[in-house]
Amino acid sequence: MPLIDSLVTTDALVEVFSDASVLEAMVAFEVALARAAASVGAIPTAAAEFIARAARPDAIDARDVARGARESATPSIAVVNALRDQVRAVDADSAAHVHWGATSQDVTDTALMLMLARAYRVIEPDALRVREGLARLSDAHAQTVMLGRTLLLPAVPITFGLKVAAWHRAATRSWNRLTGAWERALVVQYGGAAGTRAAADPYGGAIAAALAAELGLRAGPPWHTDRDRLGALVTACGLHTAVLGKIARDIALLMQAEIGELAEAGGGSSTMPQKRNPSGCAVVIASAVRVPGLVAAYLSGMLQEHERGAGGVQTEWATVADIVQCTGGAVDGLVRIVDGLTIDAERMRRNLEETGGVIFAERARLVLSSKVGADDAQRLVATAIQRSRESNQRFVETLATLPEVTAAFSPDDLADLDRPEAYLGDAETLRLELLKGVD
Amino acid sequence: MPLIDSLVTTDALVEVFSDASVLEAMVAFEVALARAAASVGAIPTAAAEFIARAARPDAIDARDVARGARESATPSIAVVNALRDQVRAVDADSAAHVHWGATSQDVTDTALMLMLARAYRVIEPDALRVREGLARLSDAHAQTVMLGRTLLLPAVPITFGLKVAAWHRAATRSWNRLTGAWERALVVQYGGAAGTRAAADPYGGAIAAALAAELGLRAGPPWHTDRDRLGALVTACGLHTAVLGKIARDIALLMQAEIGELAEAGGGSSTMPQKRNPSGCAVVIASAVRVPGLVAAYLSGMLQEHERGAGGVQTEWATVADIVQCTGGAVDGLVRIVDGLTIDAERMRRNLEETGGVIFAERARLVLSSKVGADDAQRLVATAIQRSRESNQRFVETLATLPEVTAAFSPDDLADLDRPEAYLGDAETLRLELLKGVD
Amino acid sequence: MPLIDSLVTTDALVEVFSDASVLEAMVAFEVALARAAASVGAIPTAAAEFIARAARPDAIDARDVARGARESATPSIAVVNALRDQVRAVDADSAAHVHWGATSQDVTDTALMLMLARAYRVIEPDALRVREGLARLSDAHAQTVMLGRTLLLPAVPITFGLKVAAWHRAATRSWNRLTGAWERALVVQYGGAAGTRAAADPYGGAIAAALAAELGLRAGPPWHTDRDRLGALVTACGLHTAVLGKIARDIALLMQAEIGELAEAGGGSSTMPQKRNPSGCAVVIASAVRVPGLVAAYLSGMLQEHERGAGGVQTEWATVADIVQCTGGAVDGLVRIVDGLTIDAERMRRNLEETGGVIFAERARLVLSSKVGADDAQRLVATAIQRSRESNQRFVETLATLPEVTAAFSPDDLADLDRPEAYLGDAETLRLELLKGVD
Amino acid sequence: MPLIDSLVTTDALVEVFSDASVLEAMVAFEVALARAAASVGAIPTAAAEFIARAARPDAIDARDVARGARESATPSIAVVNALRDQVRAVDADSAAHVHWGATSQDVTDTALMLMLARAYRVIEPDALRVREGLARLSDAHAQTVMLGRTLLLPAVPITFGLKVAAWHRAATRSWNRLTGAWERALVVQYGGAAGTRAAADPYGGAIAAALAAELGLRAGPPWHTDRDRLGALVTACGLHTAVLGKIARDIALLMQAEIGELAEAGGGSSTMPQKRNPSGCAVVIASAVRVPGLVAAYLSGMLQEHERGAGGVQTEWATVADIVQCTGGAVDGLVRIVDGLTIDAERMRRNLEETGGVIFAERARLVLSSKVGADDAQRLVATAIQRSRESNQRFVETLATLPEVTAAFSPDDLADLDRPEAYLGDAETLRLELLKGVD
Repeated sequence: MPLIDSLVTTDALVEVFSDASVLEAMVAFEVALARAAASVGAIPTAAAEFIARAARPDAIDARDVARGARESATPSIAVVNALRDQVRAVDADSAAHVHWGATSQDVTDTALMLMLARAYRVIEPDALRVREGLARLSDAHAQTVMLGRTLLLPAVPITFGLKVAAWHRAATRSWNRLTGAWERALVVQYGGAAGTRAAADPYGGAIAAALAAELGLRAGPPWHTDRDRLGALVTACGLHTAVLGKIARDIALLMQAEIGELAEAGGGSSTMPQKRNPSGCAVVIASAVRVPGLVAAYLSGMLQEHERGAGGVQTEWATVADIVQCTGGAVDGLVRIVDGLTIDAERMRRNLEETGGVIFAERARLVLSSKVGADDAQRLVATAIQRSRESNQRFVETLATLPEVTAAFSPDDLADLDRPEAYLGDAETLRLELLKGVD
Repeated sequence: MPLIDSLVTTDALVEVFSDASVLEAMVAFEVALARAAASVGAIPTAAAEFIARAARPDAIDARDVARGARESATPSIAVVNALRDQVRAVDADSAAHVHWGATSQDVTDTALMLMLARAYRVIEPDALRVREGLARLSDAHAQTVMLGRTLLLPAVPITFGLKVAAWHRAATRSWNRLTGAWERALVVQYGGAAGTRAAADPYGGAIAAALAAELGLRAGPPWHTDRDRLGALVTACGLHTAVLGKIARDIALLMQAEIGELAEAGGGSSTMPQKRNPSGCAVVIASAVRVPGLVAAYLSGMLQEHERGAGGVQTEWATVADIVQCTGGAVDGLVRIVDGLTIDAERMRRNLEETGGVIFAERARLVLSSKVGADDAQRLVATAIQRSRESNQRFVETLATLPEVTAAFSPDDLADLDRPEAYLGDAETLRLELLKGVD
Repeated sequence: MPLIDSLVTTDALVEVFSDASVLEAMVAFEVALARAAASVGAIPTAAAEFIARAARPDAIDARDVARGARESATPSIAVVNALRDQVRAVDADSAAHVHWGATSQDVTDTALMLMLARAYRVIEPDALRVREGLARLSDAHAQTVMLGRTLLLPAVPITFGLKVAAWHRAATRSWNRLTGAWERALVVQYGGAAGTRAAADPYGGAIAAALAAELGLRAGPPWHTDRDRLGALVTACGLHTAVLGKIARDIALLMQAEIGELAEAGGGSSTMPQKRNPSGCAVVIASAVRVPGLVAAYLSGMLQEHERGAGGVQTEWATVADIVQCTGGAVDGLVRIVDGLTIDAERMRRNLEETGGVIFAERARLVLSSKVGADDAQRLVATAIQRSRESNQRFVETLATLPEVTAAFSPDDLADLDRPEAYLGDAETLRLELLKGVD
Repeated sequence: MPLIDSLVTTDALVEVFSDASVLEAMVAFEVALARAAASVGAIPTAAAEFIARAARPDAIDARDVARGARESATPSIAVVNALRDQVRAVDADSAAHVHWGATSQDVTDTALMLMLARAYRVIEPDALRVREGLARLSDAHAQTVMLGRTLLLPAVPITFGLKVAAWHRAATRSWNRLTGAWERALVVQYGGAAGTRAAADPYGGAIAAALAAELGLRAGPPWHTDRDRLGALVTACGLHTAVLGKIARDIALLMQAEIGELAEAGGGSSTMPQKRNPSGCAVVIASAVRVPGLVAAYLSGMLQEHERGAGGVQTEWATVADIVQCTGGAVDGLVRIVDGLTIDAERMRRNLEETGGVIFAERARLVLSSKVGADDAQRLVATAIQRSRESNQRFVETLATLPEVTAAFSPDDLADLDRPEAYLGDAETLRLELLKGVD
């Protein structure tokens, strides 16, 4: 893992986009193409075998390929040449059958698909663990009352279970969206110079189908400058990472010492022995901060000219790899947070109580309205809030001292007024509906 | 239409996001909420009727609302107050039943949904016209041969029908994706202060369902800080606009005087009488240039704190409206281009011929390989290209003068070599597959 | 102010980019051009006078111009035609002298410069008020001790004065950068069709200079597709807005009920009577969330083709206006926050004390190291932190119970250890240096 | 160079941000800090010497550091620990003097500064070569007439020298802006835990100054969450890259076969022997497409909380390194283009002539106006354009056949009308002014 990128990727994803992996994927395309071409009679079966046998991606010099890439705006030419040399050394005649009917972008696009297929398999288990962890957490805290906070301030009570269920649903929904987009994006690229497969005629369609099957990708017409399926994948990454970023931001805020409702497992400091930082949150948020701009870069590059473009497509490998690494980095960060999260339910309740009950002002207004009318209710509540703040008396107690209130309500009427459990509305119903997550 | 935005929106969409429309949508929420609340017995039926009757969005002072919005970070408070005043003037008691159990973001989010529903209806007909226009164009030019161009240079022949079919498929696919995302995003917002619907207890769920039905929106749990469905809508806008931008860029490039294969209907100049500019293309591209950054802005704002955020959500109205207007502006631009497009099939062929046949070098190499081997074929083709360029003789004629070629091939063998129709590969098959558009 | 944009602009800036202002600026260009042309003898003085007299920007139909803009990818043609009609009605011959030697982009670019000049004058006073307000606040709280927080957790003590001084410096530096970029960007555009001023020959240079002088803009060669100066202005807007966003986020965080160190003046809720929201902060952050993507949109549009582009430049009016409005909106939001900010210095100290002194662990480690060595110091501090947390005893008291500590230090040695004032380092020196702000 | 990034970076810049370079820079900070601390008497001179002698960045395991980085949201802790171990092995007591008074972000920020200083030195020579190459090219083609093109269509004549001079000026101006921003950004970071330098008291200021001097960086107050100077650097990168992207796009467009006015030296194809692709242009444009989004990512991350943030800063290493690599990649791409550029002046003239002279319609209108009035002039020119298009006769010849024209003008009057050299306006004056480049 490059240190410079260490906070926005994972070891496993670095490996997916490593030189070894890139070369392996590019050569895998060529080997599968040879097999596909042989399978439909376009090239001799022996040639496909020689190509498969000779192909040694690990023996290709990545530096040469990189240099060639900068000269010809594609790494394909250098790889094809290197592979031809490898084949020639085994069987001279078969070298001519390498890269049969293909163009350089067929190689780079299909190789990207193969790397993306691997990346998905890397990320998926952790994404499911996040989901399961959140479901478990929500169930465990179905009854844990805490402050609902809006604009960063105490609003009305909620349950931690409900809060986590909302995280769970957004994470699940955005992951499912990502899964769908990912699957639909993994289409083989085999179009030849300008997408007509003329150089493979009359075998083009058959080769394309066989090639897709060989590589475990979907078949379809060439899509050299039709990047919206890949775009759907990267925007779905953007959405999922943003959802995880929201969860991490919530957790980091709840870890503030003055709130102290949650704690991550990790997070030391280089100089302050007492600190237990929201390090995992910072890592997740880092990815969420980085991804939107990368998504914009991808979208900007989609205006690709004619049959194969000059500029837009050449930026995609780097940008797609960055986006996927951010996504995986965020998932990896969150799974570690969720697995190690400490919940301080007592502190949640204490924070709620320390509002002095003003968070029940909305409720008090509703209750009072029924007997004294809305306008008076509003005035009485405002008075009680102010006096309560001045006197440090609890809001409901203060309210109960107002003559207009005592005239209309018995103490019993008001007893329940600031009990959080009595003002949770549909919290549990919604929690279950969110966990069920049909949408 | 504000002049400053005139190139990135349309009249109809400006109207959808106008003050009148905003106020109408906000008040529509409140009126529907009153009806929904009354329908489940939460408030008196008479109150709902008074509210519906008194509500006059056009009588609310938009300037007051805007001022209030900047003070309280939401336009809702001022609108609710104004509406309460309107109701009070008709029936004092009913005023208290306005905004029943709702929070300000319930109003703004649902109002946005209503505006988005209208925006969709505005854009859809044009999007379908683009699609139909492209399908027609592709069919009409199934046999029109032209240059395929890669990295802006002649590659091998294609048909204009194939090129347009690829536009058609990407436009259709990205529009369908957008339609799906749009439909899924239109969920009513009714959660109350912190998403528990406590102030509406025990009617919350029933009201939410009735409210959704009243407004023609989908029902669902509150989603105050779960913005991924709306995010899916705006990213789908980004993808569709990018696809249209690619089409417009292609057309603008083919309109260059030196290429001259296409022409838009419009486009005068303020000083040069001879010009017929790609004005429609410029307008479509303008939207496509603008949208990616706006999508990034949306994604960045998704990290919303706790139950309702401070900052992210407050930027959404402006950004979503901008994105939708860009999308609609691009669709509107493209429909006008497609409807008025002139195709110069003769020029397409002439441009192809003026390459001197070097675009058949790939083909020549393949044909020669069969008899002289790949290495010699490559050498002979390179020689012929060079001599052809020096002598201005056509490539295939030059090739036919090389002794090694004449030794192996009869003139008849080579006759067809640079006939574009003979080197179209799967163009027509792919065209039909693309138009069918299953993916 | 359009409601849809109300949280990301101001009344005054809406006016700057209103239709009336756009038309006024465009016509101002044409009138000044006529005067400039007359002043150097290119057109009759009388013509310039007729043009100036006839010009009635308020009588031009903005709807016609908008429609024309979408047809020709520029609003200029419709405006020039309308102006010619106005002039023709006064003096037929003078109509031909309208738009002398200019191209449509000369009008739109120069009009944008004029609007930007006005926008600057609108924003500047508030920007200076922010600066002054922060300086005053810093001075007033030079001695107000509070928690320094890192990764959202208590770190070591700072002063509120230092914190505000850092805000002040970044705000000042980024404003100064913006001022410089703004001034350098305001260059007249007068290049004619392709930037050679051929249609104005031999008067081109002289007219350009006179025109700049007429309009109070800088002179310079045409810059139709050289957008980096304008780009420097918008990126400087992006930087300044981000700096203000950071300040607003800090304030919003310090306004959390559990921290309660700061309070904005405003911010009611539509349903919760007790709330005093960080509304101003939300508005500032909204702009800061929105601007980065808009900056990306601007940068993406800079790749403008040849002498005048197709797509990039057509998106600029909308995007530049949005960026400037966000910037002004953020400045306006912050000035209101700063002017009405309540500081609870007592709460600042209490929050510091409620850490139990663990924030002095770093200091304790340093002090202990001097006598017991670094490794033992670290171990002793860790022990004391743990015991302190378990026992709720203050950290330094706990530390003072450890035998190894008492062996090496007298109680006097440790007396000062957790006095915040004794561990402020260079806070005051740095505060003064930051306020002086030379960089 | 990682293959996945090969089109958006350079070998030299990959090295600048490599693990070896990161570790070297981080350790250089610690060594310089020790020396600075010793130089002011804060730590023993011997300790500084031991630290300097023991420090072996190449012996630190980058994998451990990366793992540690993901755990603690910073690579610093692992590096400091590794360095302490190295020092301890040499002199146990000196280990405690490592990282004296510093916090983890002091290390990462200063290390970034050191890498940026190196990156600048890598990019600068090529940036100057671009500039010189363009100046030379402009001078060589001061008289080379070509088409000015607007909205991708022929407008009026310009010189290639003028076109290149405009490229030169924008490239020079944006490079100078970048140089200034770069220099101002390179400020040492030394603030300790929360920016007060309390742990270094009373030596903080003196150490900071000495440390800056040791490392060749500017001194200044801590700037942990004040990122606008670094932001100015990255936005200046964005502007410069966009300027280079514009140049590359122009060149790629002029390389189209149908235009053929320019040619790059390189650019083969994997399947089409005849192609000479605008590969360098594609590489430059790829960077220009990618950078704007990365700039947005940087700006979004600037809202960093309190004294050191959680999320924003953690994304910066990756994003800044990407932006700088894109910038360097674009500069490297352009230097190769400019050095190998072939200019076909003859083709430029032929393309101009093949417009049939309609590009002189503006001029004809001006000339005719002088005698027949503006309205008649416009009508005559329109007639001549239409007839000229129908008859394939040159525009001016067609014009000369119109009776109203022959009545007012002698053939001599019209002789010069479509001579490009006679309609260049201020081209040469402006060219010289642009090359002089004062702004």
